[in-house]
Amino acid sequence: MVDAHEKKAPHQVVIIGGGFGGLYTAKTLATANVSVTLIDKRNFHLFQPLLYQVATGTLSPGDISSPLRAVFSKSKNTQVLLGEVKDINPKAQQVILDDKVVPYDTLIVATGANHSYFGKDHWKDVAPGLKTVEDAIEMRRRIFGAFEAAESETDPEKRRAWLTFVIVGGGPTGVELAGAIAELAYKTLKEDFRSIDTSETKILLLQGGDRILPHIAPELSQVAAESLQKLGAIIQTKTRVTNIENDIVTFKKGDEVKEIPSKTILWAAGVKASPMGQVLAERTGVECDHAGRVIVEPDLTIRDYKNIFVVGDLGNFSHQNGKPLPGVAPVATQQGEYVAKLIKKRLKGQTLPQFRYNDVGSLAMIGQNLAVVDLGLIKLQGFIAWVFWLLIHIYFLIEFDTKLLVVFQWAWNYITRNRRSRLIAGREAFVEPKTVNQQ
Amino acid sequence: MVDAHEKKAPHQVVIIGGGFGGLYTAKTLATANVSVTLIDKRNFHLFQPLLYQVATGTLSPGDISSPLRAVFSKSKNTQVLLGEVKDINPKAQQVILDDKVVPYDTLIVATGANHSYFGKDHWKDVAPGLKTVEDAIEMRRRIFGAFEAAESETDPEKRRAWLTFVIVGGGPTGVELAGAIAELAYKTLKEDFRSIDTSETKILLLQGGDRILPHIAPELSQVAAESLQKLGAIIQTKTRVTNIENDIVTFKKGDEVKEIPSKTILWAAGVKASPMGQVLAERTGVECDHAGRVIVEPDLTIRDYKNIFVVGDLGNFSHQNGKPLPGVAPVATQQGEYVAKLIKKRLKGQTLPQFRYNDVGSLAMIGQNLAVVDLGLIKLQGFIAWVFWLLIHIYFLIEFDTKLLVVFQWAWNYITRNRRSRLIAGREAFVEPKTVNQQ
Repeated sequence: MVDAHEKKAPHQVVIIGGGFGGLYTAKTLATANVSVTLIDKRNFHLFQPLLYQVATGTLSPGDISSPLRAVFSKSKNTQVLLGEVKDINPKAQQVILDDKVVPYDTLIVATGANHSYFGKDHWKDVAPGLKTVEDAIEMRRRIFGAFEAAESETDPEKRRAWLTFVIVGGGPTGVELAGAIAELAYKTLKEDFRSIDTSETKILLLQGGDRILPHIAPELSQVAAESLQKLGAIIQTKTRVTNIENDIVTFKKGDEVKEIPSKTILWAAGVKASPMGQVLAERTGVECDHAGRVIVEPDLTIRDYKNIFVVGDLGNFSHQNGKPLPGVAPVATQQGEYVAKLIKKRLKGQTLPQFRYNDVGSLAMIGQNLAVVDLGLIKLQGFIAWVFWLLIHIYFLIEFDTKLLVVFQWAWNYITRNRRSRLIAGREAFVEPKTVNQQ
Repeated sequence: MVDAHEKKAPHQVVIIGGGFGGLYTAKTLATANVSVTLIDKRNFHLFQPLLYQVATGTLSPGDISSPLRAVFSKSKNTQVLLGEVKDINPKAQQVILDDKVVPYDTLIVATGANHSYFGKDHWKDVAPGLKTVEDAIEMRRRIFGAFEAAESETDPEKRRAWLTFVIVGGGPTGVELAGAIAELAYKTLKEDFRSIDTSETKILLLQGGDRILPHIAPELSQVAAESLQKLGAIIQTKTRVTNIENDIVTFKKGDEVKEIPSKTILWAAGVKASPMGQVLAERTGVECDHAGRVIVEPDLTIRDYKNIFVVGDLGNFSHQNGKPLPGVAPVATQQGEYVAKLIKKRLKGQTLPQFRYNDVGSLAMIGQNLAVVDLGLIKLQGFIAWVFWLLIHIYFLIEFDTKLLVVFQWAWNYITRNRRSRLIAGREAFVEPKTVNQQ
């Protein structure tokens, strides 16, 4: 065990998870007099906000992945460790991996969250979510595969089912998927088939709440809904999926029960914390909320453990508005930076006031030249919002990688409606546990 | 059945395989008064000459894939059919798929070739080849995974095995892989690890013949060998692999038998025709050579069947120099164009002289600013050859896709040594037969 107060050995910081939370913690600690170990199951950071573009064929996985070793190549105090954390021993201050034990003085857990199937976990196979690169490739395979199957199908009813896409969840991911599939079906692919007319495609977006994009202002939510409908998508609010079976989605709107045959069902709803939340609860006695997120203290530590922090989607921070902060990149980023600063202060015997999220606003892309941006006082829509969306993403992408060119490529493909990356590749089987995504 | 001589129904051309041969046949027929059906198991054409860059993390699969439907979007006489051909009935003039039968007047078979393991097919799992996108992703996973495993390994002997790469086959693919891995190990990744020194990496290129790149002039072959050795790779000529077992490669050079422990063995040797060669032999009685390639007539038809053509790697055309033309893109491309022209001539009751391959030369990339180009009279090496290599590839890429930007991206990554696409993704399991590559 390393003693943090000993003169020679630097303070050992261990970070689990290389998403936005873990990445920004490590980046902010890069110049500090600490030794940082960043552990992830994958060898890359994934820019998740653009994952839907991989799923719909505009970008390749490599376009939105930054190799963690390359990001920290120059940070000599930082070691990247590829591995899966099995357990934590908070008394001995150890993180337990398959083949080794890593001691820590301060631990940051940032393993994120997944979609929740509301107890119907068997829906996962028929209605895949979108959290990992493999998820995106699988979604892409299903979307483009559906058009191919429709082209070969002679039975009109079955063909209709192949040309029906149901997206469950009206948050940013669901909206962006619906918009992208609408552009594919009604624009990009229009000339590509000989037997089917892709403009007959039906795109259904099902939302449990009373409006899509519930995190942004109601008037922008309305604009987004109208834009999506103009593109050709059908939105059903106050609607809950009650069954998915034999290529039929059953959903309930009020007392009305409807059924729709669909071969492609995409899941973009719910939040379920990664299993590390459960591990923390068992080992430290910390409380979790209904979604399995860890209840954090105002300084992002967990109760009784001042040297364990939880940042990003895995945490439930409700000290600001009484409800948990949303699971978005800016929250994770700011929390990571806060924790790193607090660690640096502590090493000097100082402290920091409690964490406060500086709401930078919400935004969602709907289609070409169409987005909504809610910055609180300023609200944008249409083309100007689209440009803003683009600039924000360029800004964040270039922050940790020379990705400018990639984003130009993306913008270029987007404008020219080129879908170069629509190749349907093999579905993945995780042969080595190492390659399973942490988030 | 469609009768080709009937006035109303256009002549039915069916092409099996969307590689260079099939693609250029279809492109050249795009304006002809024929009906074309292009059948492939995959929904994209793969620019195979750059596949090694996907395997070594410079490019993403999408960067070198062109969706077949997009390529033929404007060719209204061409239908793309995603499916796997199970059989051919030359008497009834039918191609048999899983779920349908496609009639033809003229058939072009262009299903390519694979690597040959010289009868040791079980080596495939330990020494993967490089023919499909999935192969490339698997190779990438192994290459980058090896450095990760070495970083975690404490046993020096095992670590050495992780840092030893054996490439079997000294043709263009083997040379390009060796060069790319050398640049990775000795340049790109040098700063990225904390426990290992990647400059201790050993790269072994094993070649059966007496020199690498046997298809180019001996003096350029010599230049290539010297350049590779300067980069740090070790070349063993006149060497045959006799066994691969328990992470040990056994090879024989003359009477000398050597063993080398290696965790990453990459296969780039031998030629074995795709199974469609066997189907043709059984159904038409045509002869195949030892590699399973179909012996074609001077006009690329097969014996006794003037309406069946074989183009590209699947065929053995030896009417020019007495030995088969090499399995490279220019041969397939020129053969595809020839067959399309011959079909057009035939429809007018005319014919064409026999096929002649116009040798455009050979080239191979070795590393940054390093290539060899053999144009017969003109021979280039070093930087000028590298620029030539780049221009040729840009030229071919933009011919059927707006890929200019992509190649710029590639060049940019190459020059900046950025390896954005080094993400290690899941290994693929082919759940649907549809997603298995035809070549």
